[in-house]
This record gives sequence, structure tokens and C-alpha cells, in this order.
Amino acid sequence: MSRWICRVIALNLLWSVITSCIACSAVPARADEGMWLFNKPPAKALRERYGFSPTQAWLNHLQRSSIRFGGGSGSFVSSDALVLTNHHVAAGAIEKLSTPEKDLLQNGFYARTRDQELRCHAMELNVLINIEDVTARVHAAVKGGMGSAAAFQARRAVMNTIEKESTDKTGLRSDVVTLYHGGLYHLYRYKKYTDVRLVFAPEQAVAFFGGDPDNFEYPRHDLDVSFLRVYEDGKPAKVEHFLTWSQAGAAEDELVFVCGHPGRTDRLNTLVHLKFLRDCVLPASLDRLRRREVLLTTFSQRSRENARRAGQELFGAQNGRKARLGNLAGLQGPVVLARKKAQEDALRQAVQKDPKLQAAAGQAWDDVAAAIKIWGGIYQELELLENDAAFNTRLFGIARTLVRLAEETTKPNDKRLREYRESNLDSLKHMLFSEAPIYKDLETVKLADSLGLLMEKMGADNELVRKVLAGKSPQERAGELIGPTRLEDAAYRKELAKGGLSAIQSCQDPLIVLARLVDGPARAVRKVHEETVEEPLRQAYAKIAEAQFALYGTDLYPDATGTLRLALGRVKGYTEFDKPVPPWTTMGGAFQRAQEQDNQPPFRLPASWLAAQDRLKLDTPLNFVCTADIIGGNSGSPVVNRRGELVGLIFDGNIQSLSRGYAYDDQQGRALAVHASAIKEALRKVYNASALADELGR
Amino acid sequence: MSRWICRVIALNLLWSVITSCIACSAVPARADEGMWLFNKPPAKALRERYGFSPTQAWLNHLQRSSIRFGGGSGSFVSSDALVLTNHHVAAGAIEKLSTPEKDLLQNGFYARTRDQELRCHAMELNVLINIEDVTARVHAAVKGGMGSAAAFQARRAVMNTIEKESTDKTGLRSDVVTLYHGGLYHLYRYKKYTDVRLVFAPEQAVAFFGGDPDNFEYPRHDLDVSFLRVYEDGKPAKVEHFLTWSQAGAAEDELVFVCGHPGRTDRLNTLVHLKFLRDCVLPASLDRLRRREVLLTTFSQRSRENARRAGQELFGAQNGRKARLGNLAGLQGPVVLARKKAQEDALRQAVQKDPKLQAAAGQAWDDVAAAIKIWGGIYQELELLENDAAFNTRLFGIARTLVRLAEETTKPNDKRLREYRESNLDSLKHMLFSEAPIYKDLETVKLADSLGLLMEKMGADNELVRKVLAGKSPQERAGELIGPTRLEDAAYRKELAKGGLSAIQSCQDPLIVLARLVDGPARAVRKVHEETVEEPLRQAYAKIAEAQFALYGTDLYPDATGTLRLALGRVKGYTEFDKPVPPWTTMGGAFQRAQEQDNQPPFRLPASWLAAQDRLKLDTPLNFVCTADIIGGNSGSPVVNRRGELVGLIFDGNIQSLSRGYAYDDQQGRALAVHASAIKEALRKVYNASALADELGR
Repeated sequence: MSRWICRVIALNLLWSVITSCIACSAVPARADEGMWLFNKPPAKALRERYGFSPTQAWLNHLQRSSIRFGGGSGSFVSSDALVLTNHHVAAGAIEKLSTPEKDLLQNGFYARTRDQELRCHAMELNVLINIEDVTARVHAAVKGGMGSAAAFQARRAVMNTIEKESTDKTGLRSDVVTLYHGGLYHLYRYKKYTDVRLVFAPEQAVAFFGGDPDNFEYPRHDLDVSFLRVYEDGKPAKVEHFLTWSQAGAAEDELVFVCGHPGRTDRLNTLVHLKFLRDCVLPASLDRLRRREVLLTTFSQRSRENARRAGQELFGAQNGRKARLGNLAGLQGPVVLARKKAQEDALRQAVQKDPKLQAAAGQAWDDVAAAIKIWGGIYQELELLENDAAFNTRLFGIARTLVRLAEETTKPNDKRLREYRESNLDSLKHMLFSEAPIYKDLETVKLADSLGLLMEKMGADNELVRKVLAGKSPQERAGELIGPTRLEDAAYRKELAKGGLSAIQSCQDPLIVLARLVDGPARAVRKVHEETVEEPLRQAYAKIAEAQFALYGTDLYPDATGTLRLALGRVKGYTEFDKPVPPWTTMGGAFQRAQEQDNQPPFRLPASWLAAQDRLKLDTPLNFVCTADIIGGNSGSPVVNRRGELVGLIFDGNIQSLSRGYAYDDQQGRALAVHASAIKEALRKVYNASALADELGR
Repeated sequence: MSRWICRVIALNLLWSVITSCIACSAVPARADEGMWLFNKPPAKALRERYGFSPTQAWLNHLQRSSIRFGGGSGSFVSSDALVLTNHHVAAGAIEKLSTPEKDLLQNGFYARTRDQELRCHAMELNVLINIEDVTARVHAAVKGGMGSAAAFQARRAVMNTIEKESTDKTGLRSDVVTLYHGGLYHLYRYKKYTDVRLVFAPEQAVAFFGGDPDNFEYPRHDLDVSFLRVYEDGKPAKVEHFLTWSQAGAAEDELVFVCGHPGRTDRLNTLVHLKFLRDCVLPASLDRLRRREVLLTTFSQRSRENARRAGQELFGAQNGRKARLGNLAGLQGPVVLARKKAQEDALRQAVQKDPKLQAAAGQAWDDVAAAIKIWGGIYQELELLENDAAFNTRLFGIARTLVRLAEETTKPNDKRLREYRESNLDSLKHMLFSEAPIYKDLETVKLADSLGLLMEKMGADNELVRKVLAGKSPQERAGELIGPTRLEDAAYRKELAKGGLSAIQSCQDPLIVLARLVDGPARAVRKVHEETVEEPLRQAYAKIAEAQFALYGTDLYPDATGTLRLALGRVKGYTEFDKPVPPWTTMGGAFQRAQEQDNQPPFRLPASWLAAQDRLKLDTPLNFVCTADIIGGNSGSPVVNRRGELVGLIFDGNIQSLSRGYAYDDQQGRALAVHASAIKEALRKVYNASALADELGR
């Protein structure tokens, strides 16, 4: 679900049962709603509802114990920089450490001693050190009378400058984060770690027990856990802030906190915008995901080694498909849209009644509609050419990055595409020069399919399509592009990157030639999107957000942005089809579920578990649910109690929670976590990993 | 592959290696090309190339030993009406005879005595008794000056009349078959059998060994065989014509014949038509098939019983996907279209040079293009509403059939939709009142997905879509349609059908109500398609076919039409990626392939085979290939030698043969057959079915 993390938009298969609040106000007011900023915690709600007032020290400790993964979350859990996250967050790295002989995803891994810990390819972890409000400086860069393109440029320029100044001064990774759709701009400074080593991973069969059928469902029985360790100067880092392990875990109805990096919410989305997602974005991306799923499934079926090579990506496609199907189902039902319409009508009426607000924001909904219309016109080309649907391979991604890196780094920082800004270059090169293996057989199959998609969607007679295919069939063309390329060799990539623009321009590697060919049209459609869709949407939503602020006060949290947030909630079951769903499952329940399903994959427990069954305390809680407001990106987030102790590890949301892209609801929507007790029980009794369990405290 | 049978259109993944014939003439001239009529066999070619002249008695015997299945083929192999066909042709019937406790598909079946033979639900077999040329009478019905709609009506009316007269007179099922796209009309009279019983089926694991990965591939190792028996008056029928079992099988390079029911070829298709298939029909149907495949896979993964319920349909979706992917790949490459263009240019030039031909057919290519353009405009609506993409469930199919049956049978025979003509009514009712089980859980999941597709494609605000969904989400609506319907009860269906139009019009069963709602728009788009696409295409292709006749003589066979044809060829291997592919595989090869694939499904041989391994003569040929011109629909066709003895059983074509929808090529394209010797060896030594083996002769 690490990919779900940053892409989920929303839905609720069972929205239809939630009909009570259609006419509620535009202000968020549901019990435990909110993904709060660490520098603006929900102090009032905590005090009034739970009688709890976190101190600044409590907040700081939690913040600095928390870790940002690319698209996921984690936390330090020992002074020797031991990191806890989900198995599925680390799975990409685990796959890259695997070989045909030693499949760590399937068989699991445990480094009994530190020297057995395996360094992950291209993994970067970040810890948020501090936050600075730079709103005034960013706003000041946009002068009255600027068009939207100029405003976009001006804002990006000043953000780049602020980031560069900060990095130069502090040595910390510095990102300016856009909050409240441009209502606020905060500078986030991170300590970055790039030497990350694998300590422990269970077998995927138990980490993702129940597979696709149980994904996004509850009750669940997953040990979706892995441990990594951060190194500095070749030694385990020493960290001041880490979470202590709770002895008992959380009790029913107890207040808990989730601290992680929700990727994205769109709770301001207008009705027109939601309909566009329903009618265009979700169906189209589902068609692409299903296509990928079928392709990777057939590739995987040809041999066990093929299955290993394609495994993580197949999981990503299935996971994305299930999440989006949930999303779409929510939007295809009547309730979500009716509720959005009622909220929108209420807000627009309130805006109309206030002449100042009307002047500032009255036009914003129509602006959204106009931008969406343009988006609809370029959606397909944008996905194909710029978002790589037509070239869906790692090698093409590398080729494009090399081509753009050479060109962009000849420009001043503020004129570059955002991912080539100075502040991003280190991370980008870290990925670009990764030694992780690339499988040309899989790349060929994927590129052939992608080129076929290009031909279907843009037409065989399109000039660019003809140039890309060069008179060949998609299969044949994919073979002659992937076969001879040398880009799978990291040393060759480094050499090309070092050679700069002239090396790239004279390079005859077929994928570099293709990337050069496609770059013009891809940049062109990206520019249209950035300037006539993204920027107008950003401005319009900023106005709507501003109007909300003005009307309903400061009791609001911003939409998720992949940055650190604090959510609160209770450990609490719910009711489904008139039956109570209890808040816990147990380790014994996993054995029972396996038995019910004839021990067939994906319901087959690994041999280690079967061997340990008699030793295990079977009533140990395995998974639990809470009402905290999370979304994709929260995977791997620690769940802590009032004392800041770790009681669980977020790994999923149930299907009723997928609507949270657009709206929070706690009637049935729940965050799913692995219970702290099960992790320790499994480490000691299934995996005989007592050194690791001891490191978590006794 | 029984579904492949009637739907494959074509392709060749490796067309690109066949570049030699781009400029060849429009006349078919390749060595063993042709799907010949039994009343117009390729006498000259057989005599000249093979020195063989079949007698009328030889032809008659083969014809009356051959059996037409719905979408497949078979043959009589004993005087007690024992029928040989593929496992996959009978699989639908076998599935319907299975229960959760007794899964005959998975476990196989053998009736050791006649009283254990199981009667199949709704199976109808037909044996072609004779053929009469009725061209003059059909042509005479179309008067000069008639528009295309009127011509269509007039032709259908006279065909209905001819069929009805024949049935009344002979008691035989009588179908007028359109050959040469209307160049000839032949009346086919069949003896129909409806009491068909299952005698033997192996486990699906060996019938479809290699599953989707090996499907349409070669070398292969499949025992794709089943035996049925036809009963009359509760006793095994006595048949005069049946095939005797060859002792030795066929030798390499030996002449063989395939006698079966190729479903459809489109070898006259114009360039514009092929491009339409490439750009619209194939991509759209692939999207639907992948969607169905993913849906049925996720349904199947939830439990073993689910997998059993959805198994055949999932197989159909995968099979269709693989066939169409091959098709599309052929059309997306440059060779097929370049060759078609060269042929078309040559034919058009020849037509232009002859004023009479030019007057008759010169316009035909433009007529095709005009009809295709209309087709493109209605394609989506036609698929959704009339071809049931929006209501893809058995129960809706039943509801629609009941609604239309009530209405159509109030009309004169010649005014009816074709499937409700008197000549079809028996077969239609046989299907409609079948007692085969229907699973409401699977039906609900499928209908929800179909209704979601309808909403995506026609838009949530479309008036018909709104009426169909009645303010609910697709999931919820599917539940309230499938939940209370009583149509799964065959007795209720009979009662409704008996009640006629008034019963249907007052019926409140939710699916009947839905079928009534949809029927108007569905009929409307069908009418547009029949009158402005099908009929103009039929007329235009008849003109092109006529011009070909006139220019190149009578040395031509007609496109396949699902009726009995004779193909000829040699048992012959081929070369692929510079390596020879031998014509045979052996039973021992199956064990070897299983071992290479770690004995994991779909490469796991059943326990019966593993237990018999030491007893088997492992060098017994298992599968073989020949050059005969076959296509989907030929599944289950007998392969016979000059003496008319059965040497094999067609079960598939290799991927290079899938282009045969548009063009025959024998460089790599091959028909795949199960060898007669392997069938006997397996019956005796794996299944201990000596009574059955003895019935095939010693």
C-alpha cells in the first residue's frame, strides 16, 4: 500500500448508509476529524473532549521520533536508530535486495548481528527538525496584475530561493510546503539519512496475509511490519528521540495519536471537480491499472522467477485498483455528491452574502470548472506523454531523467522543472544512480504494452506515434529499444550525467534518443497543465480556503500534503450489516482464518508460524482499529498513547475509510494498525529474534 | 477456447518475419489454404498435390460422423453414439453438472457403466444431413430498386420461409447459410440431438495443462479431451456413421483432414475495416475483457467455492484476452496491413479495368468505409445495450429473452428478430429453461460492475442511465435487482413464458422490469446497426466477393460461417527464433515441463498422472501440429487420414495462426491436435477406463 499512500483519492462503498449529514455545514466538525499541523495542534479539542493538553516537549519528541519515507511513514524505536515501518513500505527495498537464489520478500529476513544488516538501495529517510512560517515572503513575491503563469513562476522562484538559502545555511534538506492551498507557506527542514539497512522482515505471506481479497478490509490478520536501521559514518546513528514500546497496548475507547505523512486529501474539491474524477480520471486510471495487472499476472505465471521480478509492481497495481474502485464506487453513489452539493451551496451562499468575500472568492467555483474543462481536453496526452503511461518502464524513466537533468541544470534554479531544483538534486541523483537490478525481460514486456497503449489512444497515424514506433510493431520496437540500451548500468548513467548536455545530445543509446524525441511534446503538455490547470486550480482553491477561514475561524486543518501531521482518535469497533465488528483481532484468529480458507494462498501462513503455533499466546491482539483521520501515506505511522508510548503501527484503512480523500466520517471508516504486543510476541516466539525484541525494551 | 471459437478475428505476433508476400495477388494461393464446403471439396488441389481423390461415400461418411456443438465441433467414434470433443468444448456442461461437493471440472469424471452417464443441461448437438442450394430463390426475393433495409427484410423473410418449409417437411433443423457474403445461399439440414450425457472428462489440470501461459502456444502438453454420448428415447442412439480409431496415428508429412465448424473468418476485410478493428473494436473489447478478468479473479480468490463458480467464465475472459491481444498485435505491426493494402490495390485496379465489374463493384470499398464510419458512431451503445456489456449476467440474459420472446412470437415469422424465428425457437427454449444452477453472488458482482461500466461510458447524467440506476449506486442497484428476482427458478421462467405478452407486461420481477426498460433503446441501436452497418457491409462484401469470383474463377472457398468445412494439411513442424519446433510432443514431455515449473499450477499434473507415470509409455505422442486451415470453432474437430481414420483431435491454434481471421499463412501458423494414441494410452493406464478404450476399438 505504499503506492496507495500518495494516490488515493477517495470513496465509500457503504456511503449509502450514512445519510444523516447531507445538509451539514461546510466546516469540519466531526468528532476526531483532522490531520493537524505540529505547529498548530488541536489543543482545544484535545482539552475539551479528552482533558489532555500535550506539552511542547511531548510534541517535539513525537515529531523528532517520526520519519518520512518516500510515500510512507515510520518511527525511531531505539536509541541505536532502529526504525519501525510497514513491510509494504519497505517492500520495494526488500525486493531490490533479493536475488533469484534468496528471495527475502517471500522468505523474510533477520540480521542476527549488526554486521548482517543489509544496506538498501536508494532509500532516503527524513526527520522533520523544525518549521518556519514563510507565508509573507512567498505572498510578497506575487505582485498585483501578474497573470497566473507569471504568479506561478514568481512563487516558485522565491520558494526555490528560500529552500536554497536554508540548505546553504543549515545543511538540512529544506522544502517549502504549500498549506491551505496557498493560504500558508511553511518551510520544513529535515535531517536526511541515506544509509538505511534492513534488520528484519517477516515473510510476505504473513505481512500481507489475505492478499488482495483482504486488502482494505477488516477484520484483518497482518503482521505488516519491518525494521530498518539508520547508519551514519558506517555506524548505527545515535538518536535522542525515539518511541518507547508500550507494555499493555491501548484499551478500548482509549485516546490514541497517529503521527505520520498523509499523502493527499482533496476535501475542498468542488462538485464539478468530483464529477470529473468520477467520469474521467478514475475510470481511465482503472483501465490502465487493470491492464497492468493482467500484463504482470501473465508475466508472473510463466515462472517463479518472473513472479519474483514483477511481484512488487503487481501488488502496486492490485492495490491501486482496489483503492480506486472504492473511490469510484463512492462517487458513483448518490450520497457523497449530494453531501458535497449541500456543503458547497451553503458555503457559496455565505460568500455571496458578504460583499468582500464575494469579490475575493465568488468566482472561484467557476474558475475551478473552467480549469477542469481544460484538464479534460489534455488529460489523455498528459498521462501518456508526461506521466509515462506510454513508456511505463524504469529504463525510460532513467533516460528521461538523464535528458532533463542535462538540460535543466544549464538553467538558473528558479527556471527549472521543480524536480530538478537544487534542493531536490541530491535525492534525484540518489535514485538515478541506484544499483538496484533492472530486468530487461520485464522492461520489454512493459514497454511493448505501453507503446501499444500509445498507439490505441493517440492513433496509429499520429505523427509522434509514428516517430516513436519507427515503422515497427509495439513488440518489435520495445525489443529494439530495451535490448541494446546500456542504461541498466549505473556506471554508464553516471558517465552520461557527468558529460552534461553535450554527452546527452550526442548519445545514441536508443532510450536516450527516444527520451529526446518525446521530451518536447511532453514538456509542452506539462506546461499547459501547469499553467492553465494546476495554477488556476491552486488559486481558486486558495480563495475557497480563504473564504472558509474568514467565515468559520481558525478551527481548521489543511488538506494533507505528504508532510507530518498529528491525528487523534479512539480505539473503537463499529457496526456493519447490523453486526458488531470488534476493535481487535488476535494471533489465534489468523490461524482460524487460514483454516477456513483451506490454507491456500493468499491465506496460507508461513511455515515459521505453523511451527510456532503451540508456543504462541493466541489471544495476543494482532490488529486493531481506531477512528483517527488517516489516508494513504500514513502507512508505517506509529500509534501512540497519551504518554507517547508506541501502541501500534498503522498499515491500512478499511474500505469505508477510502472516502477520506473527500470527507471524513467515523461511522464505519477506520484506521487499521498492527498491535505492538503482536510484534513482540512474533519476534520472540516465531522468529527467535530476541536481540531485536530486547532492543525494543523489556 | 470454446469462446475463442466464434470470436477470434486474427493476428500474428511474428508477422514481422513474414515479409516475402506483400505484393502477392488477391487470390488465395497458399499451399494448404482453405476451409472448403463439403459440396465443393478441393478436388483439384487434392488430386494434383497429394494424388488423392476422395469418393462421395468418403465425404458423406466424414460429414455424417461430424458433429456441430454450440461454438465448437466433435465427432461420433462408436456405433453407440459415443462423441469425442475437447474438454474445453464440454467444460460449460461439465461445470453445470458440478456441485460444491463434487467438482467434476477439477476432479474429472468417468462413468464406468452407462447408467452412470450424466445428462448435460441445455446441450444441443447437430449432425449435417444434407445441403441444398437455394441461392436463386433468395436472390429472387430482392427486387431491383429495393433499399438496403427492404432488401434485408425481403431476404430474411424468404430465408425464414425456406427454413420453416423445410422443417415442416423433413422434421430436421433447417438453417439457410449465407456463403461468399451473399454470393451463395445454402440450406443446411441437421439431425438434432438434445439428450447428451457426459461419459468421461479428465481433470482440468491436464486438459488445460499450462493454463493461460501456455494457451495458444506450442509445444503443448494437453489432454484436452472429453467423451459424451447421445441418447434417443432414453437409450444410446445407434449411429451408422462414426470414425474408426487409427492404430498408428499420422506420420510426419502425411496428408490429414480436419472436419469441423470454423466460426468466422474475415478474409475479404478491407484496409479501412481492419484499421477499425485495430483502432476501435479490439482495444475496446480488450478493455472489457481485462476488466472482467480482474473482476472474476478477485471474486475467485475469496474462496475455493467462488473459484469453482467463476472458473469457466474466467477462463473464457483470459482466453478471449489472449486471442485478441494476438489479433491486435498483428494489426499494430506493419506487415498485415501492408499486405492487405497491396492485395486491395491489385483487386481494385483489376476491377477498374473491367467496366462491367467497375459498375457492379467499383463503389464497394467506399461503401464499406461509409458503413464502418456509422458503426464507429454507434459502437459503444451497441455493445452496452444490445450486446449486454452493461448487463453482463445470465439472469439479465434470461429476462431479456423472456421479454423478447413474448413480443416476437406475436409477430409473423419473417418480421421477427432472427433468434426468435420458428427455426430457432426450440433451441432457444432449450437454453432458456435449462436447470443449470445460477449463482446470485456472482451475478450480483457482475451486474454491479456492468452497471458501473454503463455509467462510465454513457455518463451518469444520461437519461437511460439514470432510469437504470434509479438513484442508487451500481453496487446497491445490482443488489436490489438480483436479490429478489425469481428468474433463477426454471419453473418460474416457464410460467412467465407460457403467460405470453400479458404476463410479461404485468410482471414486477425487477429484472423483467429492467429488461422492459432497456428493450426500446437496445432494439433501436440494433436496428441502426442491422440496417446501416450490417446490411451495407454484407452487400459491399458480396460485391467484392463477386468481383473476385469473376476475376479469379471458382478456385475459391467462402469465409467461415460456423458451418461444416473440410480443411487439409500436412503434419509438419516449423522454425521459430532460428530453432526447429518438432511436430510432436510426448506424454513424457508433460512430466518434464511440470518439473521445470516446480509442479506449480497451472503446471501441476493431477495425482492420477503422477501415480501412473511408471506405467505409461512415455514416448507416446501427446500433441502434434499440422498446416490445416482452422480457426476458432474448429475446437473438437476430428483429424483423419486418407482412410478416414481418426488420428487426432484439434484443440487450439498456435499464436502465429491467430492471423487467420484475415489471412492464412503456413510458415509458422499451425493447428494443434491431441494425438489419438495418447488418448487411448491415458484411458487405459491413467484412468483405468478400459471399457471406454475398448469401445474405441482395439
